[in-house]
Amino acid sequence: MKESRRRFSRQEYVDRQTKVRQSMREKGVDVLIVTDPSNMCWLTGYDAWSFYVHQCLVIDVNTALLWYGRIIDASAAQMTTDLPATDIIPYPDDYVMSTERHPMDYLCGVLRDRQLINGVIGVEMDNYYFSAKAYEALQQGLPKTKFVDATALVNWQRSVKSTAELTYMRQAGAIIKKVYDHILEKAEPGMAKNALVAEILHASVSGTDGVAGDYAAIVPLIGAGEEASACHLTWDDSLIEGDTGVFFEIAGVVSRYHCPCSRTVYFGKPQKKYREIEAVINEAIANTLPVFAPGRTCGEVAATFFDTLEKHGFNKDNRCGYPIGLSYPPDWGERTMSLRRTDTTVLQAGMTFHFMPGMWFDDWGFETTESLVVTEQGGECLSSVYRGMLVKP
Amino acid sequence: MKESRRRFSRQEYVDRQTKVRQSMREKGVDVLIVTDPSNMCWLTGYDAWSFYVHQCLVIDVNTALLWYGRIIDASAAQMTTDLPATDIIPYPDDYVMSTERHPMDYLCGVLRDRQLINGVIGVEMDNYYFSAKAYEALQQGLPKTKFVDATALVNWQRSVKSTAELTYMRQAGAIIKKVYDHILEKAEPGMAKNALVAEILHASVSGTDGVAGDYAAIVPLIGAGEEASACHLTWDDSLIEGDTGVFFEIAGVVSRYHCPCSRTVYFGKPQKKYREIEAVINEAIANTLPVFAPGRTCGEVAATFFDTLEKHGFNKDNRCGYPIGLSYPPDWGERTMSLRRTDTTVLQAGMTFHFMPGMWFDDWGFETTESLVVTEQGGECLSSVYRGMLVKP
Repeated sequence: MKESRRRFSRQEYVDRQTKVRQSMREKGVDVLIVTDPSNMCWLTGYDAWSFYVHQCLVIDVNTALLWYGRIIDASAAQMTTDLPATDIIPYPDDYVMSTERHPMDYLCGVLRDRQLINGVIGVEMDNYYFSAKAYEALQQGLPKTKFVDATALVNWQRSVKSTAELTYMRQAGAIIKKVYDHILEKAEPGMAKNALVAEILHASVSGTDGVAGDYAAIVPLIGAGEEASACHLTWDDSLIEGDTGVFFEIAGVVSRYHCPCSRTVYFGKPQKKYREIEAVINEAIANTLPVFAPGRTCGEVAATFFDTLEKHGFNKDNRCGYPIGLSYPPDWGERTMSLRRTDTTVLQAGMTFHFMPGMWFDDWGFETTESLVVTEQGGECLSSVYRGMLVKP
Repeated sequence: MKESRRRFSRQEYVDRQTKVRQSMREKGVDVLIVTDPSNMCWLTGYDAWSFYVHQCLVIDVNTALLWYGRIIDASAAQMTTDLPATDIIPYPDDYVMSTERHPMDYLCGVLRDRQLINGVIGVEMDNYYFSAKAYEALQQGLPKTKFVDATALVNWQRSVKSTAELTYMRQAGAIIKKVYDHILEKAEPGMAKNALVAEILHASVSGTDGVAGDYAAIVPLIGAGEEASACHLTWDDSLIEGDTGVFFEIAGVVSRYHCPCSRTVYFGKPQKKYREIEAVINEAIANTLPVFAPGRTCGEVAATFFDTLEKHGFNKDNRCGYPIGLSYPPDWGERTMSLRRTDTTVLQAGMTFHFMPGMWFDDWGFETTESLVVTEQGGECLSSVYRGMLVKP
């Protein structure tokens, strides 16, 4: 690893690999093919925008740990991981986006050479970066091998954050605070949305003193006026209007670690319905934060939140949060737990969530969200952005 | 569709659907499940950052055309497509990232209700957004249905661009020209890379007079000094050094249409090896551009380019380009043709490529790339960025 690219100690990576191997043993997985780029980075440090072609790590329960990817990305693996050169295995370029051969065909040969085909192989069945075709190629190439679904096996090991990881997430929290300060300074009615997003991106990537901003796994989402009824629209060149609320769903990011934070900014004197929902959501957040404590469950968190909303006559028919941390596009969620009534996962200190009280109505919307870490004292927010509607008169 | 969100006429979308249905008939596909967000947008206009959950279009050879996605994204489908409300079909939120139920389970019921299960169903087997698990859920839910691989069926229909599409791509070309002007103005040795990327993003999204910049499917890639030997690293907080070359792989983007353009910027008086490779690459580009003409092939383009390099003793073991246009993360390529010797695809007027003469050596790299459209007169570049090394003394 090029030391300027090092984000965690060699030992921290080894500890992570040990945790994954322990989970593999428990689940009867002998060899795991890791295609989620977040998992690849967490396990080894590998970091490059190369996930648009097939690539993976291969880890067995004993000692094997291989990076496998396109030949022109092998140098990035050398620079960003501690793997020895002999465990960085490139495939030739004519396997890239070919209709005749698939990178997973070539991987079958690698697995055979390394004697990694005699046990049960786990694959991340429901990941963006493990296509139906990739699985078919593996099955055809290794017809005698048993494959099992190991989706999120690694993701679950990532849920409790280390001290070093939390440091990055708090730094990301400082960046998103700066970004909101910048929004309040720059945004005004009549400004084109893309011009405002340009300011957001500039502030996010500039970072804070001494800490560089990284790219977010999701681009800035911005919902203004009636478009705020849709939660995942991106910007266009339309103008921000006065006397309306605009929500921002954005994140500070440091070394691929995210601190998402949504706020609604109101331009003018807030309409009554905005103040009402602000009060309800703030009450719900205040009630719910203490429940983010070790021993409580995702379901209890969700119930506390939804019950408060319902007491005030509001109904939210979607989950109110998800775990966060290291991520790559298209999602900054960790894809394990969900904050919904039916999720019985028990919380542990050091777990991190994006607690997501967003409300989308027929022709408007409102978001106040917090990224937080589970502590004995309840959820501790990772940023200090003012919690409530941000008003620019 | 909300008219402020309209990018193409209703008729252009109908024409695209007709082309896809024609191709489906030729290939014996009765119903196509379209999961690639670029294909979803091209066919209907659907545009939101919702592709991190399962979603698709369903199109049959006759008249059916459905949007299927998460319930909270249905309003985005109403705003960005011409589909009637009855053909926008949401799935409940408890199918999102659940370990018990999969959105494709629910889709099976929809297909059954709409009587779309009696023919051959095509799926995009090798797409980021069609996971192995999604395919398994479909196969288990519809055990009597025959599925065939229809990867890139829609992508191929996108290869020849319409006048309206080319307009967006030329606008994107104007934006990337502005971005390079901005880089030359702002960049200097001692500047942190993330600070420079902040400037790039600001200029890209600000756009040009009257045209907003959209987000690129790939974040800015920047290779400086020895890191330029790796082609897909992203930025960190290290400083740009003097007396070295830095390549930028970036794109202007308008309404999701990309104009990628890479250049190498040299800070100081260029070393001889940079001037030598610049001359070779410029000669190779000049030789190759005329071959981007209707009736010629991808292989002829690649051969002309590689032959010129080899004449000068250089060998490039990866493809030298790919088609471009509308795209979403993680890739701005169209994933059909490749500019390599073995690709026999015949070029047609209106096809657009990112012609990608990048050279990566052991401890440095160099990129000069052009986005172009195939015309009777050969490849016409979509941007007017100075072709050569950009030198900042």
